[in-house]
Amino acid sequence: MSTPSTTEPANLMEAIVSLAKRRGFVFPSSEIYGGLNGFFDYGPLGVELKKNIRDCWWNDMVRRRDDVVGIETSIIMHPKVWEASGHVAGFSDPLVDCKVSKNRYRADQLFFAPVQVETSGALEGASSFAQLKEKSGTPPVIETIGYVSTLETDDVTRDLEKLANELKRKKQARGTLLPLQVRDFTEARPEEITQIPSPATGNPDLTPPRAFNMMFQTNVGAMTDASSVAYLRPETAQGMFVDFKNVVDTGRVKLPFGIAQTGKSFRNEITPRNFIFRSREFEQMEMEFFIHEDDDWAKWHRYWINWCKDWLKSIGLPDSHISEFDHLKEKLAFYSKGTTDIMFKFPFGVQELWGIAARGNYDLTQHANASGKPQEIFDEATKKKFVPHVIEPAVGLDRIFLAVLASGYAEEQVTDEKGNTETRTVLRLSPRLAPVKVAVLPLLKNKEALVARAQALYTKLKRKYPCFYDEAGAVGRRYRRQDEIGTPWCVTIDFDTIEKEGDTFTLRERDSMQQKRITEAELFALLEEQVY
Amino acid sequence: MSTPSTTEPANLMEAIVSLAKRRGFVFPSSEIYGGLNGFFDYGPLGVELKKNIRDCWWNDMVRRRDDVVGIETSIIMHPKVWEASGHVAGFSDPLVDCKVSKNRYRADQLFFAPVQVETSGALEGASSFAQLKEKSGTPPVIETIGYVSTLETDDVTRDLEKLANELKRKKQARGTLLPLQVRDFTEARPEEITQIPSPATGNPDLTPPRAFNMMFQTNVGAMTDASSVAYLRPETAQGMFVDFKNVVDTGRVKLPFGIAQTGKSFRNEITPRNFIFRSREFEQMEMEFFIHEDDDWAKWHRYWINWCKDWLKSIGLPDSHISEFDHLKEKLAFYSKGTTDIMFKFPFGVQELWGIAARGNYDLTQHANASGKPQEIFDEATKKKFVPHVIEPAVGLDRIFLAVLASGYAEEQVTDEKGNTETRTVLRLSPRLAPVKVAVLPLLKNKEALVARAQALYTKLKRKYPCFYDEAGAVGRRYRRQDEIGTPWCVTIDFDTIEKEGDTFTLRERDSMQQKRITEAELFALLEEQVY
Repeated sequence: MSTPSTTEPANLMEAIVSLAKRRGFVFPSSEIYGGLNGFFDYGPLGVELKKNIRDCWWNDMVRRRDDVVGIETSIIMHPKVWEASGHVAGFSDPLVDCKVSKNRYRADQLFFAPVQVETSGALEGASSFAQLKEKSGTPPVIETIGYVSTLETDDVTRDLEKLANELKRKKQARGTLLPLQVRDFTEARPEEITQIPSPATGNPDLTPPRAFNMMFQTNVGAMTDASSVAYLRPETAQGMFVDFKNVVDTGRVKLPFGIAQTGKSFRNEITPRNFIFRSREFEQMEMEFFIHEDDDWAKWHRYWINWCKDWLKSIGLPDSHISEFDHLKEKLAFYSKGTTDIMFKFPFGVQELWGIAARGNYDLTQHANASGKPQEIFDEATKKKFVPHVIEPAVGLDRIFLAVLASGYAEEQVTDEKGNTETRTVLRLSPRLAPVKVAVLPLLKNKEALVARAQALYTKLKRKYPCFYDEAGAVGRRYRRQDEIGTPWCVTIDFDTIEKEGDTFTLRERDSMQQKRITEAELFALLEEQVY
Repeated sequence: MSTPSTTEPANLMEAIVSLAKRRGFVFPSSEIYGGLNGFFDYGPLGVELKKNIRDCWWNDMVRRRDDVVGIETSIIMHPKVWEASGHVAGFSDPLVDCKVSKNRYRADQLFFAPVQVETSGALEGASSFAQLKEKSGTPPVIETIGYVSTLETDDVTRDLEKLANELKRKKQARGTLLPLQVRDFTEARPEEITQIPSPATGNPDLTPPRAFNMMFQTNVGAMTDASSVAYLRPETAQGMFVDFKNVVDTGRVKLPFGIAQTGKSFRNEITPRNFIFRSREFEQMEMEFFIHEDDDWAKWHRYWINWCKDWLKSIGLPDSHISEFDHLKEKLAFYSKGTTDIMFKFPFGVQELWGIAARGNYDLTQHANASGKPQEIFDEATKKKFVPHVIEPAVGLDRIFLAVLASGYAEEQVTDEKGNTETRTVLRLSPRLAPVKVAVLPLLKNKEALVARAQALYTKLKRKYPCFYDEAGAVGRRYRRQDEIGTPWCVTIDFDTIEKEGDTFTLRERDSMQQKRITEAELFALLEEQVY
């Protein structure tokens, strides 16, 4: 068997979504009812992969550390939590209505440009405005003949240019089209808003942008009025701040220490997209690491950036796909000392995966003020009370799930013993994450001794490790089925197992496709080392 | 040390709630804002206990079985799911308004009785109505002087009798008060509703009962109107039905097989109560076991009742607290073949813990009709298609959590080596569930060799098992701290460990308080056997 050559599929995103559906990783929610935009279900293999990511994080972040404890707070909290945190006032997207079609758009995803022509002829055949202006010496005569608009596309400028040319033709405008100055709708001036066409109608039917709060709202109790309004949490983090004192009073914790939680959060995104990357219901894994007000926040910030990057690698994400992005100082909230995003190369571009924010003592202070309950720690050394500062590594579990699928997916040209070339799909999942750790395969299903030995091994393995028993079809085809779902090892019980001494099996490794003989004890030792 | 004698605390429920708060198992949600009725948070130890219950269930129900697969569906699903399931029309409580105070009550928790007196004197001094009627021969003259009402209390009849006596006094009514015929407000006749006093005002200000839907409602997308209404799921079960075909098409499953999931559900209970027993946000562990339409449903129903009872015992719940309750045939929904509840003796009475329902093929049929997508399986033997039937074991994770705390909690009088008697609080958690499996205790914290050996053991244990390192205070006090949080074993590193051969530790068992010497290998073998 030759070394496999990997080919990138033509459309990696399509290939992943298709595999996810075909093998039961991810389904659209409520699919028999046409689906619900921005909501997804995890199938039999997906739920295991998701659980493994969550458990790895929990074990490494909480159970194996002495300085982090876990909590689980409710999804619906007291509405005052979200007033104090700033979410009621400020957690919003700018929305635009089309008064005629009743469509709504996110203003920052709606692009427009004034269409301008130069009519003096000074720019005829010019390749650059500045150059020509200089050359001709004639002051150009510029006329705005209208506006064009489009929703976000792969190439907004190209699409707007097309529309601008059409407009010019339609209006029979003479002269040279100037290069478009593309802006999004949040930057439109009032006198422009009355001229920009709605993408739905082609006429200027758009309202000015208004803030649309992204929190899902509900009512708790028997009344349905302002007094009973509550929100589905848009993040898990506030749970850690609101329960800070309860944890300090009961958890035997000492600064610096962290409080971690995993759980569902909800954001009413106007345009959910990129599969499970930006959905309306998603799972977060967040940790608030509290430090002394005099401690070196930058040191801890860097510590957690490194920790998170190392952790991503420990679950098998390739270093080559990981980078850092520092938020610009001038774009940070006033209380923020710094935010660094760990970026990941997704099929649709390099996007934020994990944000590590140094938030000062803003959140605890806000809750202290709003609740009237001090959120302080007593410093034995200085005999003074103070509000701890916090470093917050916050990551979306569904995004990690997608990163794992996207970077683990490969299609390979392989040649078998008979010289036939075929394509194998393989999901290179870390043994820590693989939904199935080992597949147990009796070489033949009609040989009782093979089946009995395979069943005995399977039963013993299954107490500790998720594994799969498969006796259907040729062994090669069974390998392929496991490759596609990321099973790191297949164990074949063959005639050597039952006829030769030593009770050994054939261990076949997924990525290299190498095979070797292994005993039961060696198999358990391998799993013990690799699956943790 | 003598055998401990266990004393039941005066108020077990109070003792549990207090321990839960004090040691960080359960906090009221949003406590610094005065809490939010019906919502709870799990603290550092609570989240571990909860996770262990969930993981035990998942491992036993899904991973270790060949005939059950897991899924995780979204909390917000397409609203048509809840129309088809019957929840939009029928998942409601009867509510009563007080028109003056604006208070709302659950009609089935609001009790009333007409107050009647016998004025002929025939019943004076009578101990029983029937007896006296017979004795005197005079037909009694009965007059209704008004109505009394009360919300549910410990003893509704006693409280209503008090009110009836007051009413009689106030009205200066003569004659003998007849025994009260207590009913709840759902049974009130229209002419009675206009006479029954509101608990808030004392006047007949109550409306007739109306159905109040218990699903939390929200809006998805930018519109806030009827077209965007969605619900927080009141149960996880519908996810299994809606995704049935997706699982069948991808999961390599064959009848009979089950689909399981754990996750949050939400019910807008009007009167949440009994701590985490009946809350508004809770976690369910549900499984839908699909069987052939011709299969023996009663056999599978019994199989799953037994499985659930055995499982409860496997996580340490005492057999003595567990019983069965069969729902009356005539009270079942028309499609239901039978429902049996596994009941548990909670501190506030014997209550439902786990419901095992035989639901026929109702749910799949409803979704097939509503979606237009057949929900059938092809029978290779008969070459016919059919809709599978289902057995549903459904349990609340929070209820199991409470059952574990309530039946595990004990206060014991123990006598130490010096003959002093003290009370120890002990949580008898199964090793499978205990948040901390082992506490590692160096005998003295200022002996470097003891600390080094303890740290080495701790580090090695921590990779695999949640454990706790404690060097603060006398060993006896450290044992007590672990007893209270349910740690099954403490390991003390003492001078024998470092000075004698064999590298043994003192293993102290929580319940018996017995101690013995153990090697590291024996400790790991013990954990391997008991923690799974």
